[in-house]
Amino acid sequence: MAGASIAPTPLLKDELDIVIPTIRNLDFLEMWRPFLQPYHLIIVQDGDPSKVIKVPEGYDYELYNRNDINKILGPKASCISFKDSACRCFGYMVSKKKYIFTIDDDCFVAKDPSGKEINALEQHIKNLLSPSTPFFFNTLYDPYRDGADFVRGYPFSLREGVPTAVSHGLWLNIPDYDAPTQLVKPLERNTRYVDAVLTIPKGTLFPMCGMNLGFNRELIGPAMYFGLMGDGQPIGRYDDMWAGWCTKVICDHLGWGIKTGLPYIWHSKASNPFVNLKKEYNGIYWQEELIPFFQSATLSKDCTTVQKCYLELSKQVKAKLGKLDPYFLKLADAMVTWIEAWDELNPSGGDSTNLPNGTGK
Amino acid sequence: MAGASIAPTPLLKDELDIVIPTIRNLDFLEMWRPFLQPYHLIIVQDGDPSKVIKVPEGYDYELYNRNDINKILGPKASCISFKDSACRCFGYMVSKKKYIFTIDDDCFVAKDPSGKEINALEQHIKNLLSPSTPFFFNTLYDPYRDGADFVRGYPFSLREGVPTAVSHGLWLNIPDYDAPTQLVKPLERNTRYVDAVLTIPKGTLFPMCGMNLGFNRELIGPAMYFGLMGDGQPIGRYDDMWAGWCTKVICDHLGWGIKTGLPYIWHSKASNPFVNLKKEYNGIYWQEELIPFFQSATLSKDCTTVQKCYLELSKQVKAKLGKLDPYFLKLADAMVTWIEAWDELNPSGGDSTNLPNGTGK
Repeated sequence: MAGASIAPTPLLKDELDIVIPTIRNLDFLEMWRPFLQPYHLIIVQDGDPSKVIKVPEGYDYELYNRNDINKILGPKASCISFKDSACRCFGYMVSKKKYIFTIDDDCFVAKDPSGKEINALEQHIKNLLSPSTPFFFNTLYDPYRDGADFVRGYPFSLREGVPTAVSHGLWLNIPDYDAPTQLVKPLERNTRYVDAVLTIPKGTLFPMCGMNLGFNRELIGPAMYFGLMGDGQPIGRYDDMWAGWCTKVICDHLGWGIKTGLPYIWHSKASNPFVNLKKEYNGIYWQEELIPFFQSATLSKDCTTVQKCYLELSKQVKAKLGKLDPYFLKLADAMVTWIEAWDELNPSGGDSTNLPNGTGK
Repeated sequence: MAGASIAPTPLLKDELDIVIPTIRNLDFLEMWRPFLQPYHLIIVQDGDPSKVIKVPEGYDYELYNRNDINKILGPKASCISFKDSACRCFGYMVSKKKYIFTIDDDCFVAKDPSGKEINALEQHIKNLLSPSTPFFFNTLYDPYRDGADFVRGYPFSLREGVPTAVSHGLWLNIPDYDAPTQLVKPLERNTRYVDAVLTIPKGTLFPMCGMNLGFNRELIGPAMYFGLMGDGQPIGRYDDMWAGWCTKVICDHLGWGIKTGLPYIWHSKASNPFVNLKKEYNGIYWQEELIPFFQSATLSKDCTTVQKCYLELSKQVKAKLGKLDPYFLKLADAMVTWIEAWDELNPSGGDSTNLPNGTGK
């Protein structure tokens, strides 16, 4: 019925927020206009709240600076990091949408090998709207993509898949390396376009990067806490890693999937490896303990919601990682505060099993 | 010192055998000549032993037909399948080399997206000679490839990797689908070249296809038994799957890695889906029990060699799968026979821990 001149409604236009943490003007959005302008932005301004952040005209957005965060959360604002892009998770909390796409302000539109500009958000949405297959590996990767399927030997009972909670996208040009690798390989660029999406198998951890990330907020939102980083903390650049490890353990427990691979963005500028080393050195040391901790973490059957899982995980962090460094005691408390703040801003909880018996939807 | 006109020695020329099961003349090797001719072939002739198999001139090979197998193995020949490409595993047993590459005779040289012919064997060797990373997923895939590395958040203690036991290659054109999928999607072709190699994580099973497969025989050879298929058996087309599931469980136990992805071969011709359905229907039903069995299979600490692991697995097959169908009792016995035959033909065992204390190398 619609006239030929009317553009099709972008996918999930009213069900998805784009969350961007930033300290500068968002000129990078100019390049993204064809793909992102139809969507609502939640901008989390880090650093000096008096600075004015310019957003390219035509974008619909809400912006929160530190003063706003303090006003909205009160004492619970302590769980939101300052002077670190970990502050982005505040945006997840204030969103009312089902899906989130978060992107860094130094990420630009990449091109596929044919030279076509990649609509990263569209690919994230495809990933999120199709199931995941965490219980058995499919050698032709995502079996739900056009031209692919489950291969011989893939059990039929597993072919329905499970809901996808997270879509983890990658980066061309500057790879997401830690400071030591940056220092050793300053000129390395990622030029390999791998045309694949795959489910990270159950029981396997991965390093989740927050640069180019989509997720189902309704499903997994309360686990997407980016921790205590930056100002006043002994660690930085582990915000997304922390969220990824917690999220993976919880998805494994609740039977949901996490995909990685496409879409690529163009990561324009390597951060300073010397500054990064200062932020990372504790994390590099601690992760040797954190990985075994998360690899062996199990959640009880009572943990039937993300919130319950997350609170259970916070207890285990306190009990088992507290001796590694007092920082983890503080982090465990912040995890609890995060859930309290989440539930305060999202009173229906998004999950009726969280409510007392009989009052659920 | 060598003159410029002398070609470089092909990688692992004297340490690798190419195993080919066949019932027809090996004309397909003409196309492979630039890549495979320097290597020694072990041809396992299936079906009528009186038929003469022609091998293109210039190839160095040994050929075994059913009469040879019976002569060499005596009563133990019962563990080698007849009228099924599962017979190929006899070639693994008689080889004396460290590495095996096995390929089907309907597989041709594929081209990469730039149009260059792919040297599949060279890529398998690269995969086998570089470590695997089964304990943590690297989002840029194989970290040992040129232009790639471990990403931020990857524990440094895991960056040495572990030995690679298996390199599982893929197929362009005809995908490796089961009969029901073949029937439903008769025209589907795999045209997606995914430029990746990755380690299948620990604890995750995958459908191993025997069409284009490399492995370290010295490391994992005794687990590469392709089971009882074809003539006189109630099942076919599960030979490589069976080997893959057993191999994965044993690699996980012994701390070795399995890679999948590159190289691609060009799979020329789909097998008949109606014939396949007849071979597969039991397997399609049984695999629903087999997968949980292998997913939960654990091996005791005493299982320090592949042989010990495999014999332990055969006991579990008998105990837990015997009730599914008497076929599995027979298969469990054949697994034992296979190991006996392997050790007979490979007396040093390739593994000194198999020998009594004090006599090991």
